[in-house]
Amino acid sequence: MKRIKTAIVGASGYTGQELLRLLLLHPHVELVAATSRQEEGRALSAVFPRFSKVDGADLPFMLPDPDAIAATGAEVAFLALPHGVAAEIARALLERGLKVIDLSADFRLRSAATYEEFYGHPHPAPDLLEEAVYGLPEVRGEAIAAARLVASPGCYPTSIILPLVPLLKADLLEPSTIIANSMSGVSGAGKKADLSLIFCECNESARAYGVPKHRHLSEIEQELSIAAGEDVTISFIPHLIPVNAGIVTTTTATLKDGASAEAIGRVLDEVYGAMDFVRLLGEGSCPDTKNVTRTNFIDIGWTFDPRTNRVILMSAEDNLGKGAGSQAVQSLNLIFGLEPTAGLQFV
Amino acid sequence: MKRIKTAIVGASGYTGQELLRLLLLHPHVELVAATSRQEEGRALSAVFPRFSKVDGADLPFMLPDPDAIAATGAEVAFLALPHGVAAEIARALLERGLKVIDLSADFRLRSAATYEEFYGHPHPAPDLLEEAVYGLPEVRGEAIAAARLVASPGCYPTSIILPLVPLLKADLLEPSTIIANSMSGVSGAGKKADLSLIFCECNESARAYGVPKHRHLSEIEQELSIAAGEDVTISFIPHLIPVNAGIVTTTTATLKDGASAEAIGRVLDEVYGAMDFVRLLGEGSCPDTKNVTRTNFIDIGWTFDPRTNRVILMSAEDNLGKGAGSQAVQSLNLIFGLEPTAGLQFV
Amino acid sequence: MKRIKTAIVGASGYTGQELLRLLLLHPHVELVAATSRQEEGRALSAVFPRFSKVDGADLPFMLPDPDAIAATGAEVAFLALPHGVAAEIARALLERGLKVIDLSADFRLRSAATYEEFYGHPHPAPDLLEEAVYGLPEVRGEAIAAARLVASPGCYPTSIILPLVPLLKADLLEPSTIIANSMSGVSGAGKKADLSLIFCECNESARAYGVPKHRHLSEIEQELSIAAGEDVTISFIPHLIPVNAGIVTTTTATLKDGASAEAIGRVLDEVYGAMDFVRLLGEGSCPDTKNVTRTNFIDIGWTFDPRTNRVILMSAEDNLGKGAGSQAVQSLNLIFGLEPTAGLQFV
Amino acid sequence: MKRIKTAIVGASGYTGQELLRLLLLHPHVELVAATSRQEEGRALSAVFPRFSKVDGADLPFMLPDPDAIAATGAEVAFLALPHGVAAEIARALLERGLKVIDLSADFRLRSAATYEEFYGHPHPAPDLLEEAVYGLPEVRGEAIAAARLVASPGCYPTSIILPLVPLLKADLLEPSTIIANSMSGVSGAGKKADLSLIFCECNESARAYGVPKHRHLSEIEQELSIAAGEDVTISFIPHLIPVNAGIVTTTTATLKDGASAEAIGRVLDEVYGAMDFVRLLGEGSCPDTKNVTRTNFIDIGWTFDPRTNRVILMSAEDNLGKGAGSQAVQSLNLIFGLEPTAGLQFV
Repeated sequence: MKRIKTAIVGASGYTGQELLRLLLLHPHVELVAATSRQEEGRALSAVFPRFSKVDGADLPFMLPDPDAIAATGAEVAFLALPHGVAAEIARALLERGLKVIDLSADFRLRSAATYEEFYGHPHPAPDLLEEAVYGLPEVRGEAIAAARLVASPGCYPTSIILPLVPLLKADLLEPSTIIANSMSGVSGAGKKADLSLIFCECNESARAYGVPKHRHLSEIEQELSIAAGEDVTISFIPHLIPVNAGIVTTTTATLKDGASAEAIGRVLDEVYGAMDFVRLLGEGSCPDTKNVTRTNFIDIGWTFDPRTNRVILMSAEDNLGKGAGSQAVQSLNLIFGLEPTAGLQFV
Repeated sequence: MKRIKTAIVGASGYTGQELLRLLLLHPHVELVAATSRQEEGRALSAVFPRFSKVDGADLPFMLPDPDAIAATGAEVAFLALPHGVAAEIARALLERGLKVIDLSADFRLRSAATYEEFYGHPHPAPDLLEEAVYGLPEVRGEAIAAARLVASPGCYPTSIILPLVPLLKADLLEPSTIIANSMSGVSGAGKKADLSLIFCECNESARAYGVPKHRHLSEIEQELSIAAGEDVTISFIPHLIPVNAGIVTTTTATLKDGASAEAIGRVLDEVYGAMDFVRLLGEGSCPDTKNVTRTNFIDIGWTFDPRTNRVILMSAEDNLGKGAGSQAVQSLNLIFGLEPTAGLQFV
Repeated sequence: MKRIKTAIVGASGYTGQELLRLLLLHPHVELVAATSRQEEGRALSAVFPRFSKVDGADLPFMLPDPDAIAATGAEVAFLALPHGVAAEIARALLERGLKVIDLSADFRLRSAATYEEFYGHPHPAPDLLEEAVYGLPEVRGEAIAAARLVASPGCYPTSIILPLVPLLKADLLEPSTIIANSMSGVSGAGKKADLSLIFCECNESARAYGVPKHRHLSEIEQELSIAAGEDVTISFIPHLIPVNAGIVTTTTATLKDGASAEAIGRVLDEVYGAMDFVRLLGEGSCPDTKNVTRTNFIDIGWTFDPRTNRVILMSAEDNLGKGAGSQAVQSLNLIFGLEPTAGLQFV
Repeated sequence: MKRIKTAIVGASGYTGQELLRLLLLHPHVELVAATSRQEEGRALSAVFPRFSKVDGADLPFMLPDPDAIAATGAEVAFLALPHGVAAEIARALLERGLKVIDLSADFRLRSAATYEEFYGHPHPAPDLLEEAVYGLPEVRGEAIAAARLVASPGCYPTSIILPLVPLLKADLLEPSTIIANSMSGVSGAGKKADLSLIFCECNESARAYGVPKHRHLSEIEQELSIAAGEDVTISFIPHLIPVNAGIVTTTTATLKDGASAEAIGRVLDEVYGAMDFVRLLGEGSCPDTKNVTRTNFIDIGWTFDPRTNRVILMSAEDNLGKGAGSQAVQSLNLIFGLEPTAGLQFV
């Protein structure tokens, strides 16, 4: 089988490194380009000693030049760039005939106005928003398969949206009562020399941040609104905890009048029971990040509290895996008609 | 100044160890007894190498025999025992004229029926419930000062109750909308050889547990109901995160009609601004456990989200400090008329 | 290609779990049996939620009965059992025609007397010692390929022996000056409910242990003696540090008269430069455990100190990977004539 | 009792923060000045939320101006500055009549040539070297008490020198055989925004660094040479491990001909048995960093290996405590004739 020639643009951060790991191992992918301004000319394996003696890791980093990327024959490019920067190179690569799977926030919102509200500057490529597909494979698999431009979701949104969507679609929850508390590993903050991220500032520490209006709220509310068929506004409180990777999210919502607790489990099972990367732990079980790190799984548990009439949904995923890199690879598999689990069968 | 002769019953766990640390250093306390069945006859410093060459730590552990404890001349005893066990020895010590500061759950609830509902067995000493004072010094300082039997609060309840009480008293919050998510260090689970607590099971892991009806809910709801003047039922979701000590709690609640966000900060400031161990970080600031570990401080931050009309309250404390040991010492200071900060001025 | 029917005996500990992970993913292996007395009848995925929805993980645990294992058609069995227990089942499986790759210490020593000296009881199967091959593929590849019984080395020995063997063979080091200091992650202590292993006892802690005569010294000295052609006695000091997995070992030795520092790098390069799983970082580079966790690589760096005439050798490996599970799979690949990297190409 | 007016120059790093903690709590100290260029004008408690509501922590940071410091009436200044910078301000403060306790490396070496060899630039104040006293209170208590300028030792040197000095003085060890392996917490690397220090790069990682000629070797060898009465050259290999604070050091050395293992324990006991801050764990016991963090203790264990004729010395200390801040306070107590344990009786 012919391998898909693939590029990673912005491969020197934590998400980029995870994409490298996944694509170097993917049986149907040939990594033909990886870009990094700082590391240009150095082999992947020189920059990341972890990849030394790994097949394909002698590839040198190149500059993020669209023509040069296209010249490698790449059919698809993953973008692991800051928001605002990704849009421009996405357009350039699309114009050169590549498919683009963008892991930044640039194409996740349908509304350029919402983008400007949450990100503080005008959208850099509003004309592409209509075409972009929000890349949650469990929710929008068909659209992803047909897409030229996929906006792969953020880590927090994935952990919040997936448990809620089937329940909102089934009209079981009061949308206005949704409150999500997430705890994320430090890799979610990116690989940057920031004093607040050094070991002694994060170890033996836990704290909320980004309240009350974290940027990812915008895509969360967009997707929940679509599922609910009405505008949904929620509370979202992210926290930083001292683990390298992993997110655990606890979401509470009030059951609608007439909805039964039993329906929660039934609907989740109907929608996700047969899906490859969603694991339902069942009522009363609490997911643990350690079971999902370095995988593409999201584990979901739930319970109902009759005292408050609230459902408690709990999910765990790897913020660099299902929350970033491996979820983007899931989209690649859909776009190119590969087995859904190709390159993602690690545990 | 005469030192207060003090005993610790059940001094070999994490809470007991923290009490040892605090009382060995307390300038107005003489530690005359520390009990442990397993360690009987061994010096504190032999069991806890950390206390080697510390003044007073050559005291040998004794059996938890009430007569023997009374014979040491102890005027007050701290109980760091499992619930169900503490009540009996509390009674015996009270009968022998000691004051008792109990860190178990045995005397925290006013209702024996609620105790049985949450703890699964009949209350072991229901006749003492009326006399016991729930030992939150910031809320019940006068009663504690006059008490013979103090029920020192649990770690989760302290972190949830303190931020809420002034706001409920001021009628600013809708009690039925309160949802508390807490993240606790592993020492909160106690010092026991449990497979789920070994390093590799907790490190690089985060998970909810004990949903939806954790035992501490009972005392939380009791205290919030008193503050609100009505029955309060809340959602409480505890999580375990890989730190030794510390709890961070995020509580959301809807503002009552007519209440203003400004009132939140004002009320907190009026009530807590001058208190020794509550530190208000101000609007928009998020407390971090690393600033409170090994202290008796609770740090409180808050923010208001006009999009949802919800207040977000965030608190951080040391689960073994303000959440257990040092808070109990605060009660000791009140009972014996000491400076409120005596023995608690560490940072 | 026909898959090799494979069994894991003792699959519920950390090493067993790592073997499960590797063998479930191995392209040329079919896992037909996994044993655990405690978990008998439960599916692998039920015991280890990490393996849920992983192909092959619905296999139920069975009892470690040799006849039952043989009845599955298994051609080879990995033993992840305590020393003393492994020998008996190894014999039974050999008698039933299986190859055995034993990860315990039972067959690592050539001398039953040395075994008794270090392990405190007579060897349980001394007649099998002559046949057993010490399973260090980089040192004894040919013998492993022909073996019926492989004694897969311990984690500390691998990290100490591999850097030293070529240098001792080349007569560059004074054997009597060898001192090895190792730091190991907590998983090396096994999955057991031991108070000294709980999170709060290991986190924010570092300590030596097992001095001066750790059991693994016996196999280390045996292998170094073979390489040196003379009896070698060394100092070995293991330490426990708060990471889940990984060992870093620092070994010092005095250069022999007439030996040159340049020869160190040259010899290492000649012997290991082309090997799949040894990565030479070069002079002056220090290996980091985080680059080798969950891989079969051992990273080796070195430096020479002219002030003391000592070579400093540094190695890093995953104690559950190259130090246990994946190294054992390397032996499987040799025995069955597979690609050396089959099933081991993860990063 | 009059409090000693004290200044901290360079109080915004980890060592500075530890000094702040210690001096704010010291019963005989009044903190009158703390300097930081970046934080000038901000209160200590604003920069370090941990010190909020702590007595004395409303002091604002000032610029490190010698005249301004002297104008506060300070009698003594602690310098927690980078090497090369400390010397100049030390001289200026000495000229203004202050005592100086310098925690940098600037005055630790007796030889300006050795300083230049190890630190790469000429010594900034060679005329002060003769006067400076190497501030190891257990070794040089009398000289410290009479000193105007104390060079407080580094963290690694303290952990290596203290166990060795009595044994070298007693002529029990072969100096040329000394090899020290140390593992340090990340705070030892300082509080700086360095990519190699961010959480995800240090967590789940262990690595050697700085081989073979770490800067601290110079002061270690100087002090060991004085104790041995001959030039001593050793091997020293530092490692970084993922804990906030703490150093554990393992030192091996060959016993001299005619020396007995029993003498090791006897000599250590004679010299250190009655000292306040050295705790001898006895033969066969291994010190653990978790017992010494946030204290001024150094714990020492040892064992003898008759197979190799080597002594294994193990020590544990807090790199910010006995290895930096609290050891400097020990010198303060000596200089001003206070109780040796004043302000250091925490556990």
